[in-house]
Amino acid sequence: MAKFLTNRDENYAQWYNDLVIKADLAENSAVRGCMVIKPYGYAIWEKIQAQLDRMFKETGHVNAYFPLFIPKSFFSREAKHVEGFAKECAIVTHYRLKNDENVKGIVVDPSAKLEEELIIRPTSETIIWNSYKNWIQSYRDLPILINQWANVVRWEMRTRLFLRTSEFLWQEGHTAHATKEEAVEETERMINVYSEFAENHMALPVIRGYKSENERFAGALDTYAIEALMQDGKALQAGTSHFLGQNFAKAFNVQFTDKTGKLDYVWATSWGLSTRMIGALIMAHSDNHGLVLPPRLAPIQVVIVPIFRNADQLSRISEVAGKLKKDLESRGVSVKYDDRDNNTPGWKFADYELKGVPVRIAVGPRDLENSTAEIARRDTLKKETIPVIRAADHITVLLEDIQKNIYNKALTFRKENTFYIDKWDDFISTLDNTGGFILAHWDGTAETEEKIKEETKATIRCIPFDSPEEDGKCIYSGKPSKRRVLFARSY
Amino acid sequence: MAKFLTNRDENYAQWYNDLVIKADLAENSAVRGCMVIKPYGYAIWEKIQAQLDRMFKETGHVNAYFPLFIPKSFFSREAKHVEGFAKECAIVTHYRLKNDENVKGIVVDPSAKLEEELIIRPTSETIIWNSYKNWIQSYRDLPILINQWANVVRWEMRTRLFLRTSEFLWQEGHTAHATKEEAVEETERMINVYSEFAENHMALPVIRGYKSENERFAGALDTYAIEALMQDGKALQAGTSHFLGQNFAKAFNVQFTDKTGKLDYVWATSWGLSTRMIGALIMAHSDNHGLVLPPRLAPIQVVIVPIFRNADQLSRISEVAGKLKKDLESRGVSVKYDDRDNNTPGWKFADYELKGVPVRIAVGPRDLENSTAEIARRDTLKKETIPVIRAADHITVLLEDIQKNIYNKALTFRKENTFYIDKWDDFISTLDNTGGFILAHWDGTAETEEKIKEETKATIRCIPFDSPEEDGKCIYSGKPSKRRVLFARSY
Repeated sequence: MAKFLTNRDENYAQWYNDLVIKADLAENSAVRGCMVIKPYGYAIWEKIQAQLDRMFKETGHVNAYFPLFIPKSFFSREAKHVEGFAKECAIVTHYRLKNDENVKGIVVDPSAKLEEELIIRPTSETIIWNSYKNWIQSYRDLPILINQWANVVRWEMRTRLFLRTSEFLWQEGHTAHATKEEAVEETERMINVYSEFAENHMALPVIRGYKSENERFAGALDTYAIEALMQDGKALQAGTSHFLGQNFAKAFNVQFTDKTGKLDYVWATSWGLSTRMIGALIMAHSDNHGLVLPPRLAPIQVVIVPIFRNADQLSRISEVAGKLKKDLESRGVSVKYDDRDNNTPGWKFADYELKGVPVRIAVGPRDLENSTAEIARRDTLKKETIPVIRAADHITVLLEDIQKNIYNKALTFRKENTFYIDKWDDFISTLDNTGGFILAHWDGTAETEEKIKEETKATIRCIPFDSPEEDGKCIYSGKPSKRRVLFARSY
Repeated sequence: MAKFLTNRDENYAQWYNDLVIKADLAENSAVRGCMVIKPYGYAIWEKIQAQLDRMFKETGHVNAYFPLFIPKSFFSREAKHVEGFAKECAIVTHYRLKNDENVKGIVVDPSAKLEEELIIRPTSETIIWNSYKNWIQSYRDLPILINQWANVVRWEMRTRLFLRTSEFLWQEGHTAHATKEEAVEETERMINVYSEFAENHMALPVIRGYKSENERFAGALDTYAIEALMQDGKALQAGTSHFLGQNFAKAFNVQFTDKTGKLDYVWATSWGLSTRMIGALIMAHSDNHGLVLPPRLAPIQVVIVPIFRNADQLSRISEVAGKLKKDLESRGVSVKYDDRDNNTPGWKFADYELKGVPVRIAVGPRDLENSTAEIARRDTLKKETIPVIRAADHITVLLEDIQKNIYNKALTFRKENTFYIDKWDDFISTLDNTGGFILAHWDGTAETEEKIKEETKATIRCIPFDSPEEDGKCIYSGKPSKRRVLFARSY
């Protein structure tokens, strides 16, 4: 078969890249570090968008759109933000090209130089808070609960499809509140929305927790994250929600009159989730046959493949398939009927396995005789033959079952690869041998965190919300610690 | 009232700008020429997107995403395209900033200069056809029917909210076909989709036609457009669909093997519609009270305002309103119940008129006694009191009626402002006195078109598809002509 994948257990990185390309999800473009998201990959993003957008709106948010460009000076306003973001970014310096006879082509017109350079947004806090300044006078103008679907650019030197690209798509929420309590509550609400989305829709078990100071968003007082474990034992940060305190309000002078008439700075949050999640989806569930997509995010949930030797058989199978397709669609299931005659059923089976279609139905001449259909599920690759009259009912239940099974499989994997470790030697050998999540004690200092990272490449993924209080000694320094934190090597 | 608008008939341009700002649709940002689309304006765009996206998918298209950046050299590949687009654009020349102690801020790092400058896409033909090159080998790979929702940048010197901004949002379709006939058919299909969308959803009557050579898209063999008439008598191009022939396939060397084994260049189309349409929507229907939104694109279709003197009244009205809201929502109507106590009913009435909410329901103490509700429609500003038990049925029908009425009103306006003109003096005086669409004969030459434009600022908006064959003499040169074309001054 032409679409042969590298074996996942032999070379995980190459398997991942093969899969993205061969399942037609995305490819590299002519522009360094920027990808083309192909229709099948984009269809997954549309499913992610639709679901998240629904959840954002259910929690009171509205969408808006702010400029792609940020004046350079805006970055300098918030001290930590500039350190974190105003480094590797795309900078617009000119606004006109002109023909040049000497080089027989077009050149940048030196006379069209911008007075102030514009940065392509790597994130939009600064341009948004500069707008909020004019929107907020009184507590009556609060809260502002805005989300934006947008492209952002962070100039990455080493890129990987979906996981790390110079341009990527995301949503970024930016909220403004009258009190600290409300802002903290919003930060928590949104990490819970992400967590619910990851677990119920992506079938991806995640650990919610606080980021250590080192790993916080540049300009945040607190960053909450959800962390997922990939099949190679590395962690992937799947969404973050930031409590920004009054930092951006102070940087952009956004004050409001509270109920008592007192002037105060506004409290802020921001939170984002990106096309990186498609990388997580692939790495968490897929296998050597290709993608394994949870039904709730699969662009095609069911494919029907006819097996026929002549036009008469095809026509009779098409009648059965057409009815079944209609029946399933009326239940909200997305179905593709693939009656193309230029590929064999075997080729199609392999192709839909590669593409991760959760359920495949095959109908052949014998099925016509017996009024049956063969149902194959992608997650376990198991097949069964059932009366066609029961197929729609069966598949409705089956899709839910597959969704749960994919989640449970990932959860079992995570449990089997989460280790409570108390000795430094074990810490190192676990990272080198199996990878996975390591729950270990830490003395709470940035220095120790930094040294662990230098020596092992492992970082503190988060301090889990549900990490119980427990006396212990730091895995590295031996100093006292009150709770375990989550370590891993990560994407 | 604080939200006072400039009178539409006294200063149309100022009225438009006031309306965009005061109805909270959009505002200028800190970045020259770039707007912030505020939540209420963005909600209209979401409605436009949802409907168009549905129509694109029904006609077999899928979405994908291509890079924001285009290498400068790509523009030079297609000779006419470079003339049309590689002029006023945003150019990325560097990819890093650094701290500079001398200026106490960040500066562009001169060592991080790109080898080849990147242009922020003003339109994506070049980057997309550079990808298609790798996707197409055989006729079996065709057609490719892709759409992209994206932001684009064209560096405009004089900008107006929605109508002309340096950055705007749009969709751009890019299709590839095996034959000329298929590509032409697609070009027609999409102008018809736009036309149907404009008329049935935006309530905007449009004239479909061919663009003259001068007005064609840079690189197209033919451009079809829909043209609408605004209330000030100026035309607005509301969507275009381009037959690109084999120009881009040749520029990017995209060849395929046809069914007979012969190698040929691929045929192309592209088509786009942007946030400009929100400007058209505003200018076509709105009045001195504010926006008039067609129900199908109104973010809020019905608002219920309680009129009360005390908490007991409010509580009883809320019960009635709650039931009605639920009933309407179950019929797919979007409803807002505004029981805020910090504004008077009169203030709210004016505010929802400003925002163009199609139907307003008021329920007061007398309505409670009589089991009635007062229904006001935004388009005619007429009110009627009806039994509350009939309200949901009534409003469902009313919304359809308002949709039709807004369309008919715009159609009547267009008819009254479309003139068949055969004398040059009348041509000029019509443009100066009333504006509007002028159907006149033209000799078919670019020279005449150019001179008419110079002398009157009117351009050929399109050669209407349905313009009948008719012998006549060119309005300017007196040379023979076979059909009338559509002239107007335009946005």
